[in-house]
Amino acid sequence: MTNSPRITVAEFEDLCAEQLPFVAMMGLQVQDIGYGNARILLPTSENILRPGGTVSGPAMMGLADAVMYAAILGQIGRVEQAVTTNLNCNFLRRPKPTDIMGVGKLLKVGRRLAVGEVSMFTMGEEDAPVAHVTATYAIPPDHQ
Amino acid sequence: MTNSPRITVAEFEDLCAEQLPFVAMMGLQVQDIGYGNARILLPTSENILRPGGTVSGPAMMGLADAVMYAAILGQIGRVEQAVTTNLNCNFLRRPKPTDIMGVGKLLKVGRRLAVGEVSMFTMGEEDAPVAHVTATYAIPPDHQ
Amino acid sequence: MTNSPRITVAEFEDLCAEQLPFVAMMGLQVQDIGYGNARILLPTSENILRPGGTVSGPAMMGLADAVMYAAILGQIGRVEQAVTTNLNCNFLRRPKPTDIMGVGKLLKVGRRLAVGEVSMFTMGEEDAPVAHVTATYAIPPDHQ
Amino acid sequence: MTNSPRITVAEFEDLCAEQLPFVAMMGLQVQDIGYGNARILLPTSENILRPGGTVSGPAMMGLADAVMYAAILGQIGRVEQAVTTNLNCNFLRRPKPTDIMGVGKLLKVGRRLAVGEVSMFTMGEEDAPVAHVTATYAIPPDHQ
Repeated sequence: MTNSPRITVAEFEDLCAEQLPFVAMMGLQVQDIGYGNARILLPTSENILRPGGTVSGPAMMGLADAVMYAAILGQIGRVEQAVTTNLNCNFLRRPKPTDIMGVGKLLKVGRRLAVGEVSMFTMGEEDAPVAHVTATYAIPPDHQ
Repeated sequence: MTNSPRITVAEFEDLCAEQLPFVAMMGLQVQDIGYGNARILLPTSENILRPGGTVSGPAMMGLADAVMYAAILGQIGRVEQAVTTNLNCNFLRRPKPTDIMGVGKLLKVGRRLAVGEVSMFTMGEEDAPVAHVTATYAIPPDHQ
Repeated sequence: MTNSPRITVAEFEDLCAEQLPFVAMMGLQVQDIGYGNARILLPTSENILRPGGTVSGPAMMGLADAVMYAAILGQIGRVEQAVTTNLNCNFLRRPKPTDIMGVGKLLKVGRRLAVGEVSMFTMGEEDAPVAHVTATYAIPPDHQ
Repeated sequence: MTNSPRITVAEFEDLCAEQLPFVAMMGLQVQDIGYGNARILLPTSENILRPGGTVSGPAMMGLADAVMYAAILGQIGRVEQAVTTNLNCNFLRRPKPTDIMGVGKLLKVGRRLAVGEVSMFTMGEEDAPVAHVTATYAIPPDHQ
């Protein structure tokens, strides 16, 4: 049996528009939110590219942060005050100047902390991720 | 004896304008670059604030990445192809919606990797950092 | 097509006996080494347990380090001078005082750096890992 | 004004003998515990050396974990259930086969999380650390 997600893509997008202007500015496109997992696309755009043609590191970390947030809300529903406490990013390959997909899943949802991982890759190259993030969020103790 | 920095603030700003549009977009103000250290200010601006009034995580990671880059070029001079390989950020306190200063120093410059740390804080509160980053850059083997 | 591992379990165990006394002291049991992946068991033993009955953090980080090393040598063969440059561990659940399995795979093998991840869990509970590590190794540039 | 430490070296050593057999096994020598900081020595010993003469990574991570634990108890007093949730280690230089000193201080003590950093170096070489750790501990909400 699979649990249903506790937030819809449309609800999450509304939340981002209100609460995450930095992320919204990046033009992120939420593809899917499940119970403890999510997929979000970072589209190519001039302002996140480095000359020579590669995607900037902060843009990829912003993508990963958004994927984690979506995966958490997909599992515990819309809560106030879920905040990132740690984010560790390994940059693995120089990305091509094209769309980047971020796919994340939670490794743990405890009473106070949620931990997950996000892989990022260019389309069709899931086996050769350009970056990998693990991140921890503090979540409200009464989230259940 | 103290070594002189091998890149000036003006040279670094030119480099950012060319190479780091994402960072430039954040309006970063380089305060100082030394031999293996740097200080950069992230000014308050609408587009990096989260409602409720706090600075977004990706903006602080972008600040830290820029501080590290400046500290490295301050020590090894302008090189092509210094790229971040790992960035680990601990978010420590909810920042007030005000300017954030990032202060970084290198812990090591080896033949192929440079590692450093960056503390971020609001003005006048150096003892209570809002975030702390350690990061690794791959640098060209012939940088010496 | 799957590539064959470039080191056997027996060869890796000999290497550990020579080079990694700390790891050998933990009584690690290598289960399997593939091309870029590995499985190693950390058996229950008095000296790694914390009273109250849980496995110590350093023992799990030692396990993860060994799994990564095995996965790397499984892909590039026995090389001198593969050394850990970064290890990030998220401790997810309090482990029971029982055997811990570490399962790892590489995310990238570049010219100079290899990056991978290791999940650790008690037997039969793969879906609820007790810890998760990402780690980077510096590898010799002429490893190919 | 400086706050007094809330645990003594002797009390901390008793606690380690009871609760941290792995750490005790390493022969750690607690030098000093202050309010939110600590210094611990990892003495040279056969079983933590790698042939060729260097100190093993897991031993240094165990040292850092102990330093953090001492620094936390130095600030909040002896509590049950302070547990590591994240430890990130950058290995900076190949250590000589000699004693390693670990010096740590807290970056934050919140209601539920404490975060700190630990530098490790061989005696007389504080400016050239062999490793650097940041770590997070979950602490009891009623610790104040």
